[in-house]
Amino acid sequence: MIGEMLCKEQHDIVLLQEVWSEKDFLYLKTKLTCTHPHSHYFKSGVLGSGLAIFSKHRIHDTFLYRYSLNGYPYMAHHGDWFGGKAVGMAILNLAGLTANVYVTHLHAEYSREKDSYLSHRVVQAWELQQFIRHTSTAADVVIVGGDLNMHPQDLGCRLLMSYTGLRDSYVETAKFDGCENGMTLIADNLFISKNDLFPFEKGIRIDYILFKGSSKTDIYCDFMSTTKGSVPGHALPYSDHEALTAELRLESHIPAQTGSDKTQDTPTEKLAELVDTLTEARTEVKVGLHCAERMRYTAARTGVMGLALLFLELAIAAVPCFALGAEQPFPRISFYLLAALCFAILLTTFLLYLFYTMELKSLQGAEDQMRLAAGSLQEKLRGFSVTQPHSVPQRSPDGEQPCALDPEE
Amino acid sequence: MIGEMLCKEQHDIVLLQEVWSEKDFLYLKTKLTCTHPHSHYFKSGVLGSGLAIFSKHRIHDTFLYRYSLNGYPYMAHHGDWFGGKAVGMAILNLAGLTANVYVTHLHAEYSREKDSYLSHRVVQAWELQQFIRHTSTAADVVIVGGDLNMHPQDLGCRLLMSYTGLRDSYVETAKFDGCENGMTLIADNLFISKNDLFPFEKGIRIDYILFKGSSKTDIYCDFMSTTKGSVPGHALPYSDHEALTAELRLESHIPAQTGSDKTQDTPTEKLAELVDTLTEARTEVKVGLHCAERMRYTAARTGVMGLALLFLELAIAAVPCFALGAEQPFPRISFYLLAALCFAILLTTFLLYLFYTMELKSLQGAEDQMRLAAGSLQEKLRGFSVTQPHSVPQRSPDGEQPCALDPEE
Repeated sequence: MIGEMLCKEQHDIVLLQEVWSEKDFLYLKTKLTCTHPHSHYFKSGVLGSGLAIFSKHRIHDTFLYRYSLNGYPYMAHHGDWFGGKAVGMAILNLAGLTANVYVTHLHAEYSREKDSYLSHRVVQAWELQQFIRHTSTAADVVIVGGDLNMHPQDLGCRLLMSYTGLRDSYVETAKFDGCENGMTLIADNLFISKNDLFPFEKGIRIDYILFKGSSKTDIYCDFMSTTKGSVPGHALPYSDHEALTAELRLESHIPAQTGSDKTQDTPTEKLAELVDTLTEARTEVKVGLHCAERMRYTAARTGVMGLALLFLELAIAAVPCFALGAEQPFPRISFYLLAALCFAILLTTFLLYLFYTMELKSLQGAEDQMRLAAGSLQEKLRGFSVTQPHSVPQRSPDGEQPCALDPEE
Repeated sequence: MIGEMLCKEQHDIVLLQEVWSEKDFLYLKTKLTCTHPHSHYFKSGVLGSGLAIFSKHRIHDTFLYRYSLNGYPYMAHHGDWFGGKAVGMAILNLAGLTANVYVTHLHAEYSREKDSYLSHRVVQAWELQQFIRHTSTAADVVIVGGDLNMHPQDLGCRLLMSYTGLRDSYVETAKFDGCENGMTLIADNLFISKNDLFPFEKGIRIDYILFKGSSKTDIYCDFMSTTKGSVPGHALPYSDHEALTAELRLESHIPAQTGSDKTQDTPTEKLAELVDTLTEARTEVKVGLHCAERMRYTAARTGVMGLALLFLELAIAAVPCFALGAEQPFPRISFYLLAALCFAILLTTFLLYLFYTMELKSLQGAEDQMRLAAGSLQEKLRGFSVTQPHSVPQRSPDGEQPCALDPEE
């Protein structure tokens, strides 16, 4: 049904998520050969990233960034870890304009009240904005599509939008036809259970098409639509999420003196808002950090207890051997069972310890980067010039540098 | 000793690898506060990435890319997997110029004859060039420093240099003072065993400082030096690798008509060479792919055998219970031991299966991207215009597209 719809609608660019089976991708690729001759399937994780792009325009280059955090492998029923969540980039040529198209899928939110993955999702949003910002400097147009698993006002969304300057096509569109409030996860969808949506009875908006132009190109959203649950004439909807379609209009113009000024001229209130968002994100990551530290400590303590149990058992078993001679009071079956249990505890806690250490490093890394970014922003806010007055382009072997201590570091 | 040397030499930018302990980094940070007020430590993996940067110039932004492949966790004696190998980027402002500085450390080569990590290192080199290329489009200067663990003529090195246009400071330098042939892993170093270097008796060159300018900036290497084993006046050298120092001279100029032409004007022979390198890299990745497939198959087969053994054991244990009544011919100890063994086999093979699946996905992903890149290059070589003649900037709902089948896909 999805293949038929795409074949009929003939969009320029199609971004899909959760295409877990490569067979499904290959089926779609064959079906869309005529309408979308160019395609790419992004591979990562155990199941694959599930990300795919189909395009009428030649894909010149692709690149995949795997998020450093993506849930826990032992939460197998949530399954996100096995999906290897990532953001895929494809560089297209749209009538002479370079378009960077991103497709992504962030970690799901299984409970809004007690969201144990919040810090992971915030770090994913942080890495997503970093990836988009750093890879799109040469692009004339940036288009991001995907399941962000975040409501429009959620921290990660604000972080992404305010840092990259991306605009939300639902907010920007001139005309809209679709579900109320642009919702993409609706109660009317047969695949959705109402309990999952609680406390949002009607549904939520967690899928987005974001865009921005450049100094050379203006971009506008003329029309946006969503599917509305079940497909007309069929019993089932296309998917558990509603599909988004945006008609974007590009207008290229001669840049009005781009010059060497690469730092965006962000107004002060925007900067202040960004600093606030960043502070909030840092708090969230710190909460995650404490949580991961506690979990690692628990794993270590359990491991030590397992080791102590093993030593105790060996001691009990050894003492009568030496002291009382041949008679063994420890039943052999219990002995082996207990030993096996100890080894199982040791192995599991060791693996968990490794995993939490990696989680900690990633969270700390993100926090460090956020601190650095906040420092840079505050510097800008204070009105300091970004250009350092005492910097020299090359090393002067005997030139003494003034000792410039940085209060931000 | 390293701290003292850096304090004395006062380089503009210092890139360190294998700083495994954060305490060491913090010690250096304190020691270099006066000379290098700006620093960043990149965190990833279990041990950390080991990457650090110290700078006289303000670091505005940082970003870390973790390589998708990095050895095997069970090869604990090699330890690379635990290091979480990555490439760190820092954006600095050098007297009004934007400099993207990269520091990286690729997977070690433990045996040149039987290099079981070759495909991993090739994929790392591929991802490194992708990361540098996509993130440095706005940079005036690009500087890459690190332990690439590859000889100058190795596949990964050629892939990196030819794709990014980076130049090797050892080759480019006007003056050189250091070890013969610019070697960075030398036999005279006390930490190096001669056996590790075989068949290169004197040493090898595997650490690099690479650079490139932009349309706005020219960059030259005026002087390069390496340390030469033991530090004068001390018994020990600074490290197992010799340190590299490069004096780079930047010259900014008004760009001569950059225009909209973003595709580099690479001469045909360079393009052809790039296609050859890419073909070689694809072959290497395919070899790795077959190897990973075989390993995954072995893990699956061993797992199935473990399962069969468990069922057999349960059957043997169950049969006499039902058929012959109370008497149990299966010794209980053996029963539990065998069961524990079966579970251990199942768990291990399950984990290995997951790991090899992830490895396969990453290798396949890299191969896909390489195929796409080779297609793009061949297109260029054939002299086709990069701009598609039939592309339209926005969606035309009723405009019929000609069916453009792409032979490369």
